[in-house]
Amino acid sequence: MSDTVAFSRVHIVGTGLLGTSIGLGLVNAGTTVTLEDQSPSRAALAAEYGAGTVVTPSVAHAEHRSVDVELVVVATPPDVTPDTVLAALQAYPQAAVIDVASVKGMIVERVAALSESDPGVAKRFVGTHPMAGRERGGPTNARVDLFTGRPWVITPVPETPGELVAAVASLIRTLGATVHTMSPDEHDQAVAVVSHLPQLVSSALAHQLEGASVDALALSGQGLRDMTRIAAGDHELWSQILRHNAHTVLPLLTQFRQGVQVLEDALQAAWSEGSTRSLAEGLHAGARGAGQIPGKHGGSSRFATLVVVIDDRPGQLATLLADVGALEVNLEDMSLEHSPGAPVGFVELSVTQDVVERLAADLSARGWPVAGESQ
Amino acid sequence: MSDTVAFSRVHIVGTGLLGTSIGLGLVNAGTTVTLEDQSPSRAALAAEYGAGTVVTPSVAHAEHRSVDVELVVVATPPDVTPDTVLAALQAYPQAAVIDVASVKGMIVERVAALSESDPGVAKRFVGTHPMAGRERGGPTNARVDLFTGRPWVITPVPETPGELVAAVASLIRTLGATVHTMSPDEHDQAVAVVSHLPQLVSSALAHQLEGASVDALALSGQGLRDMTRIAAGDHELWSQILRHNAHTVLPLLTQFRQGVQVLEDALQAAWSEGSTRSLAEGLHAGARGAGQIPGKHGGSSRFATLVVVIDDRPGQLATLLADVGALEVNLEDMSLEHSPGAPVGFVELSVTQDVVERLAADLSARGWPVAGESQ
Repeated sequence: MSDTVAFSRVHIVGTGLLGTSIGLGLVNAGTTVTLEDQSPSRAALAAEYGAGTVVTPSVAHAEHRSVDVELVVVATPPDVTPDTVLAALQAYPQAAVIDVASVKGMIVERVAALSESDPGVAKRFVGTHPMAGRERGGPTNARVDLFTGRPWVITPVPETPGELVAAVASLIRTLGATVHTMSPDEHDQAVAVVSHLPQLVSSALAHQLEGASVDALALSGQGLRDMTRIAAGDHELWSQILRHNAHTVLPLLTQFRQGVQVLEDALQAAWSEGSTRSLAEGLHAGARGAGQIPGKHGGSSRFATLVVVIDDRPGQLATLLADVGALEVNLEDMSLEHSPGAPVGFVELSVTQDVVERLAADLSARGWPVAGESQ
Repeated sequence: MSDTVAFSRVHIVGTGLLGTSIGLGLVNAGTTVTLEDQSPSRAALAAEYGAGTVVTPSVAHAEHRSVDVELVVVATPPDVTPDTVLAALQAYPQAAVIDVASVKGMIVERVAALSESDPGVAKRFVGTHPMAGRERGGPTNARVDLFTGRPWVITPVPETPGELVAAVASLIRTLGATVHTMSPDEHDQAVAVVSHLPQLVSSALAHQLEGASVDALALSGQGLRDMTRIAAGDHELWSQILRHNAHTVLPLLTQFRQGVQVLEDALQAAWSEGSTRSLAEGLHAGARGAGQIPGKHGGSSRFATLVVVIDDRPGQLATLLADVGALEVNLEDMSLEHSPGAPVGFVELSVTQDVVERLAADLSARGWPVAGESQ
């Protein structure tokens, strides 16, 4: 999948989780990488991990800056990303510049403003966004495989040269990610729907658990755990991200709240009039929406699931999955849930419809307790 | 874990997933089980699976009814459960009666009303609720292990004799479940918080995806998938459940909507004033709430996680988990996520804090690409 490396000399500003992982991947691919960070100790740590060589920003590296560096990757926290991008465009007048922040519009606007006095900059910058799971942690959490198989969005504007987009796409593929191309605005709309809105909804729901009793929480099932998992994320980082996309997220959150109001009215009608028609319609609309999320590898087929009960001790899950593998069945998805009160676990195996019955029968025959099956 | 069987002759009304699974478990424990269902073919199917012997309700089984049966289990859809419970209390005047519906208050009220003319009935009935995952599917999805390790709530009222509660608790343990005891009101409040509210929130969020573009949905990550999974449930059944608990769920849903409004205001402030203070506070409150959900086996410790990239083909996951097992590490939790665009999967392993570094190092040494680690 990896192309020829598009840039042979890359400078990374910001050696957190993303910057350091990019450095590791590029060094691994034979690129010469230099590193810089506001925190000298963090930059030193990233270098020690093998992500590149530290250059001190305060020292004038005139030659380094003007001639050698072909690409500057800005991987700072989102709050300082626009300023850092502008500074990089000016400090490295021959280099291309990309950033990796989760919101793109604010950066593009600043670059467009700068291009009024310095028209060349718009041709040297393109925004990107690697969607590599959680965005927390410093260089010590960095991994050369962080981007493997993850979507990485490139957000060109009309002024962006095609060769720059192609070169950046090549770099992204070198790091193992999948390239998605859309405008900055489309990107910000997309992440508002698939990431920022769910984050806020999860937080609002989880907040309400603060008033719940211990006895009630003891009945929590996988549904509640799934619904509140992302609420446990880094609230400082998320505040920054959400602030920069507030104008896009706000109408979606308002629309969501109005949808909740519709369900309240339906619930009220079900209670006072005994009619569940609008309630069922509301829930059905949710099921349709959930069905629009693409499945594995972009497909949209739904899978059959099987729940197997295992003893909660080392090796049990491996033994079960070895049996599944021996039956030549590929898992489309799986999850493990623990019983809150007993030393057992529930393994939910998702497989294609055509094999679920055979798998249930074969696992039962091998002595596995199959606690549920649905198609 | 299983006690002496408390009832030697049990009659089950309603042979869907729950009724049939209860029948299978009791027959397995040596109990004599009779079955009845509005649909004769469904009852016959349950009997064929080994859940008991069918009796035809239209035929008068005077002796069967008055003498032999010690317990009637009402396992019908929630809409007809109250009527069926009352009918069972009258048709089997010597027997105890339990039900398994997800809302308890409505049934208790009806039994209390009947006990005004027939005071004995309140001493023969107790409501129960097995929380055995999804509640869909007919007898063909029934499993003898359906209840293993799951919470099963008993909801006595002051009139309920202690011996009846003890006998029903014994039956529940025979079926492998964990007994939780609380009042009907406490139960309905608890499931409103941990189950009914999340269901409605998931539906409202998923509904909003109907307007999203294909390109946006292609960026969906595990967060959105988790948040909308339960929205795909059976909307007819959920409408019934929610209707019966509407008076308890409605104030929670209103409170939730007001919490969303607070986040809207915070987002507005972050946008217009650039201040993220109230936004960060709102997100932090969510993180605190999420932290209140008990972890594995009722504990509340948080685990460290490790993300490992695997090839997406049969046996890979089993090989990985065999390696984890060989390292004598017990998984606290795990989930599998597929890349939307590449033939790889991401396995998130949750383990205790003290082993995560060793596990990361050992798995890397065995050649597994470790894409992330957090404590």
